Amino acid sequence: MLQDIHKRLDELYPEMVDIRRYLHQYPELSFQETKTAQYIADFYEELGIPYQKNVGGNGVIATLKGGKPGKTVALRADFDALPIQDEKNVPYKSKVDGVMHACGHDGHTAALLTLAKTMKSFQADLPGTIVFLHQHAEEYAPGGAKPIVESGALDHVDAVFGTHLWATTPFGVMQTSKNVFMAGTDRFEINIQGLGGHGAYPHETKDAIVLGSQVVSQLQQIVSRRIDPLETAVVTIGVFDAGTTFNVIADTARLVGTVRFLNTDIQEKVIEEMEKIIQGVCVANDATYSFNYEKGYPPLVNHAEEAGLVLRAAKYVDEIHTTEEVKPVMGGEDFAYYTLEKPGAYFFTGAQKAGNEYPHHHPKFDIDERALPVAAKTLISAYFEYQDSNKKLKEAGSY
Amino acid sequence: MLQDIHKRLDELYPEMVDIRRYLHQYPELSFQETKTAQYIADFYEELGIPYQKNVGGNGVIATLKGGKPGKTVALRADFDALPIQDEKNVPYKSKVDGVMHACGHDGHTAALLTLAKTMKSFQADLPGTIVFLHQHAEEYAPGGAKPIVESGALDHVDAVFGTHLWATTPFGVMQTSKNVFMAGTDRFEINIQGLGGHGAYPHETKDAIVLGSQVVSQLQQIVSRRIDPLETAVVTIGVFDAGTTFNVIADTARLVGTVRFLNTDIQEKVIEEMEKIIQGVCVANDATYSFNYEKGYPPLVNHAEEAGLVLRAAKYVDEIHTTEEVKPVMGGEDFAYYTLEKPGAYFFTGAQKAGNEYPHHHPKFDIDERALPVAAKTLISAYFEYQDSNKKLKEAGSY
Amino acid sequence: MLQDIHKRLDELYPEMVDIRRYLHQYPELSFQETKTAQYIADFYEELGIPYQKNVGGNGVIATLKGGKPGKTVALRADFDALPIQDEKNVPYKSKVDGVMHACGHDGHTAALLTLAKTMKSFQADLPGTIVFLHQHAEEYAPGGAKPIVESGALDHVDAVFGTHLWATTPFGVMQTSKNVFMAGTDRFEINIQGLGGHGAYPHETKDAIVLGSQVVSQLQQIVSRRIDPLETAVVTIGVFDAGTTFNVIADTARLVGTVRFLNTDIQEKVIEEMEKIIQGVCVANDATYSFNYEKGYPPLVNHAEEAGLVLRAAKYVDEIHTTEEVKPVMGGEDFAYYTLEKPGAYFFTGAQKAGNEYPHHHPKFDIDERALPVAAKTLISAYFEYQDSNKKLKEAGSY
Amino acid sequence: MLQDIHKRLDELYPEMVDIRRYLHQYPELSFQETKTAQYIADFYEELGIPYQKNVGGNGVIATLKGGKPGKTVALRADFDALPIQDEKNVPYKSKVDGVMHACGHDGHTAALLTLAKTMKSFQADLPGTIVFLHQHAEEYAPGGAKPIVESGALDHVDAVFGTHLWATTPFGVMQTSKNVFMAGTDRFEINIQGLGGHGAYPHETKDAIVLGSQVVSQLQQIVSRRIDPLETAVVTIGVFDAGTTFNVIADTARLVGTVRFLNTDIQEKVIEEMEKIIQGVCVANDATYSFNYEKGYPPLVNHAEEAGLVLRAAKYVDEIHTTEEVKPVMGGEDFAYYTLEKPGAYFFTGAQKAGNEYPHHHPKFDIDERALPVAAKTLISAYFEYQDSNKKLKEAGSY
Repeated sequence: MLQDIHKRLDELYPEMVDIRRYLHQYPELSFQETKTAQYIADFYEELGIPYQKNVGGNGVIATLKGGKPGKTVALRADFDALPIQDEKNVPYKSKVDGVMHACGHDGHTAALLTLAKTMKSFQADLPGTIVFLHQHAEEYAPGGAKPIVESGALDHVDAVFGTHLWATTPFGVMQTSKNVFMAGTDRFEINIQGLGGHGAYPHETKDAIVLGSQVVSQLQQIVSRRIDPLETAVVTIGVFDAGTTFNVIADTARLVGTVRFLNTDIQEKVIEEMEKIIQGVCVANDATYSFNYEKGYPPLVNHAEEAGLVLRAAKYVDEIHTTEEVKPVMGGEDFAYYTLEKPGAYFFTGAQKAGNEYPHHHPKFDIDERALPVAAKTLISAYFEYQDSNKKLKEAGSY
Repeated sequence: MLQDIHKRLDELYPEMVDIRRYLHQYPELSFQETKTAQYIADFYEELGIPYQKNVGGNGVIATLKGGKPGKTVALRADFDALPIQDEKNVPYKSKVDGVMHACGHDGHTAALLTLAKTMKSFQADLPGTIVFLHQHAEEYAPGGAKPIVESGALDHVDAVFGTHLWATTPFGVMQTSKNVFMAGTDRFEINIQGLGGHGAYPHETKDAIVLGSQVVSQLQQIVSRRIDPLETAVVTIGVFDAGTTFNVIADTARLVGTVRFLNTDIQEKVIEEMEKIIQGVCVANDATYSFNYEKGYPPLVNHAEEAGLVLRAAKYVDEIHTTEEVKPVMGGEDFAYYTLEKPGAYFFTGAQKAGNEYPHHHPKFDIDERALPVAAKTLISAYFEYQDSNKKLKEAGSY
Repeated sequence: MLQDIHKRLDELYPEMVDIRRYLHQYPELSFQETKTAQYIADFYEELGIPYQKNVGGNGVIATLKGGKPGKTVALRADFDALPIQDEKNVPYKSKVDGVMHACGHDGHTAALLTLAKTMKSFQADLPGTIVFLHQHAEEYAPGGAKPIVESGALDHVDAVFGTHLWATTPFGVMQTSKNVFMAGTDRFEINIQGLGGHGAYPHETKDAIVLGSQVVSQLQQIVSRRIDPLETAVVTIGVFDAGTTFNVIADTARLVGTVRFLNTDIQEKVIEEMEKIIQGVCVANDATYSFNYEKGYPPLVNHAEEAGLVLRAAKYVDEIHTTEEVKPVMGGEDFAYYTLEKPGAYFFTGAQKAGNEYPHHHPKFDIDERALPVAAKTLISAYFEYQDSNKKLKEAGSY
Repeated sequence: MLQDIHKRLDELYPEMVDIRRYLHQYPELSFQETKTAQYIADFYEELGIPYQKNVGGNGVIATLKGGKPGKTVALRADFDALPIQDEKNVPYKSKVDGVMHACGHDGHTAALLTLAKTMKSFQADLPGTIVFLHQHAEEYAPGGAKPIVESGALDHVDAVFGTHLWATTPFGVMQTSKNVFMAGTDRFEINIQGLGGHGAYPHETKDAIVLGSQVVSQLQQIVSRRIDPLETAVVTIGVFDAGTTFNVIADTARLVGTVRFLNTDIQEKVIEEMEKIIQGVCVANDATYSFNYEKGYPPLVNHAEEAGLVLRAAKYVDEIHTTEEVKPVMGGEDFAYYTLEKPGAYFFTGAQKAGNEYPHHHPKFDIDERALPVAAKTLISAYFEYQDSNKKLKEAGSY
């Protein structure tokens, strides 16, 4: 049956591209993606697959119960876009000023919708139940995954799989990890409150720029001295904003940045050490501060079993010539919330477009659309592999 | 005669205030003060004192040749205003949005004009020649003093005196110095060019915020370690501007600041050491930089003889109960150019306004107007003291 | 046969302990371990196993050719001690002042000698050839492994295995890695040459303590910003030595430290960045420097095949209840040179002594002697597993 | 009479040199200078001038009451030596190993003794009383001046004068100041207590070298940002001592240094800011510290009246061709305690030796001995000038 499904997906390639390009022209920002959600709902309406709208926000969940017994498995695609001006020169360029599908979520959605259409025709023989999980708001913390999980909509699900079309991985390559796959990503803002004054009278002030510079310098020690060298952490200050004119000493310095990590112990350690350092600099300078640390997505940790299963499943997909277990990627992904709750795995579907090799979030970002059916095929192969492996376990009396 | 002059100045007090308040309501920015210049010119026109317009820009110079022999002495008042919104609640509040006489130049002008009017009536008995030097653009380097000196308009002048109404010195106090009186004031801008990138991949970047912070930290050593502890220098970074968002590593950092110093050897040393430090940080980080250092006004160095003479002259002014030799003030003043060329001295006329004690350049800055005639009296007293001392020197055959 | 061998090793336990305790009382420093070498040679002499002395220095290599065909496999034990004063209160305490077997090499040697004695009696049925590799000078770079490899003594060897009795791993646990197992360890010395002078006249000096402090601070950025967060590096300054008295500015600062890394690309990157930073600090201060970087042992990288084989072999050892694949250990080991040349794997034999849990190199370090036969058993099991797997490969026609 | 005294001093030049050279050969360290004290006492014994021994320690005070009325004036010479090995090649080289008159106190003593001998013969006509104040222990805080003052031995004295033979000032030049003349000099020791450990595991430690480096860097801000730019302060770390070997992270760092200042407000400010900075660094690193700050000599502040009087007095000394008011010298001097209690002034007598221009405290330090009578002449001239000026004040009815 899997081969037939793959064949059917190939036949639907033109439709897949149409859907993707339509969505590409009408991108919507995170938490505002109501038209896209309606588009998805309409699609399931027409297919006659039952669905739920407004799950955890703008989420849409459709459920296809197969004619054969089996497990319930969610396949996830996200569908929000980014506040970036599309600078590509293509017919399907974004028609919304300052908003763009610069991360491939349009492709995720097109692949999953087409897969749903395909699977509808195989429903009778389908073992188990497919949950088509269309998630809003992946790009902007706190994201859509968390409220969807909290809504209980996935309580009955046995496993979750998802993929990202990956513009820096060549077509034909599938990448995943049996452990941490993507980083935890937090945001922080530090405001150092010194005391401003005339540039010629530093002794009457507490120079916020000197203080801020000390904070930046000392924060370097968290990674260099305070984190186990075998662990991973990044502390980046992205913004240093202080002072208005050359001859006035600034009273405040604003530092905004991000922390990346692969496990939450390290995250807690970094927060604790940051606070200590900022506090210490303020003690040394008789200054005060505010420190707002916003936890973003946790690290995305694949389950070894399910990741192994995806690696096997990928072998059934003709276009995939290479499967790789890779080191973690330092970007974040709220798919993380699913694997915190359920067995599951996330993987990258190579989608690098020859001649347009811009990274994700670039104004000229684009993907090789041939990767859309590859994504769909790998997801459904993983689905079947999961059903199979459970069947074997069952037969072996393991559960 | 001096007593008569002082008395006459007291009589003209209401006019002095009127002029000051008129100018206060119609302030003009440095290098744009054409209406004020015309106002001054009209005043001399009416008085029948010959004058020159457009000296070195918007400068106005009037010359009153006395009936008795003597030296030629310039008395200087500046007349530009500042880009500050007047926040005082007074009838004579600035009528120009965002422009304000927040430094007392209106008062300087009023005092000098009224003095001119006074001296006109004493012309026959006046020894020597008074040059009423109305200078534009003191607030904004390169200032008006330099082009006025360069125009040659002061070539025939023997000495120059000037005063600043000083809002942080009490009424009745006169302050000056026999050596350096005000600081040299420069402006610099450093642009560190690193290499931007994703906040999670620092190793692919050259983090401009980390580099800029190092520059700030290391610049502290110029004053702490590289300048003779008995000399004076200030290196202030007033602006640190880098980065746009929390998860992107900044490619450039812009540092803007000021240097203060009391002699030009120190100035040269500071520039040299700054360049070395910036260069060193860039070598350490494989980065590049631009360093624009704009020399502003040189230190204002009073001539000991002329400053001594002002101290004596101040004793003739009834309102002055205290004369002080003070440490240098770290602010700058382009009167410095005059004493580089000619003997002369600059002094502060105490003008602190009870109940409104805001510093210069503050949106609520104001002065005690009773200081206007005091300024005028001290200037003309210094003029006479100078003529006297030269007469005595001449009689003694010293020149 | 393996079971018989294990049984025989158990019987020889008292002798194993005797040998270990004898060596423990007569430790010798790296490159000076001639008596220990003679002790080993005498042992083989008595056994009638042919051996070579003075291999690459004080190394001793004995060769036991089995009666059956097979591969040639080296089993390695190191035998040097450390410049540490033994502070244990035991009958077998070191009798040499300031020298101590504080790392367990005495145990390694005892285990290997006893294993040799055991295997002599199984020679007829033994497949392949065992090379008993007794290496001197592991504790002190450049170490003994390198010259032994360079001597060509291992050219005919097919694989190498070795173990370390590990005092922080519980008895019954065996740990190894299929990739990098121990870190590369280098030593460096930086001498900053400033300009000394009177403590009250910093401007006439180049303060080496301020410079050295900058170097320390900026070196933190190598790990925090210049190394891929997914890679591992440590840059430690262990010594900061500058100045002689409180009121004299130091002319030189000496910084001595270590670098740790898991691959040589990172090593090269660290060296390059260190040089840049030191150079930059010197440019910023018009100072000079010397930077001596001594490469120590490279990272010890196990071969995946051979490490897997050790993991399997350990299952044959009754005392081993747990086998673990572990993260790399940041200490170094010159066994690294063997696996650079030949297939092989290194592993830890848990030897934590209840009630005396001091780490390696501690004056009270000791081991659980029951780990000696475990080490011997695991080594010989790995030997057989290696012969087996090669036999199977051969039968399968793979080579 | 003054001319006669000067003439007599010239005649005694050979004896002055003999005394100086004798003392130069038998130097004694601070607080141990008992033989030198006895030598001085014997000298007065022989002269028949009454004296006190053991004043405030090893001090010797002789009193010559003149035949005419007048004020009581102390003339001070110190007599201790330094722990420096004499490296000069001269017949009068130190005979005490490791101890040397490397600061000219031998000369001070010789000049004052010879002056006493001279004045004995002028006793009848001498107005007022000369107190010959021979002070021990100037080189080593807390010094001899403080206990001498505290002993009450100077309670009846009206004024104090003293001079230093100054090896970097040319012969014939006299230097003093009407205000602060020499700096306050303190000593401090900071011990940072971190947590040591293995060089490869920084996260298990609190790296004292990194902490110490931060302290050094941040202390720079005291002078650069926290002290009025018009004031003077120096904070020097002379010793940074931490760690023992390259691969062990240091648990403590010892920083020893000096602070220089010209007024005690600045001293207090520096101490307060140092404490804040050290505390801040420890807060930032969860470490602890000890901070021992030992106040040394306060700034030596001359009284303007008495310094002016010395400037006039110097004109009576034929050899002095130049008198200078100079900026403060950053070295310290416990003469400071005398001018805290009594009117007085300290001055430098130019004693640079042609061809041997080593600074004070140098192993080859020497002086131009012709400066000895100059010192004596200037002191006695100041004495007379002081008597004169008081006589005039008295006549004028001022007191």
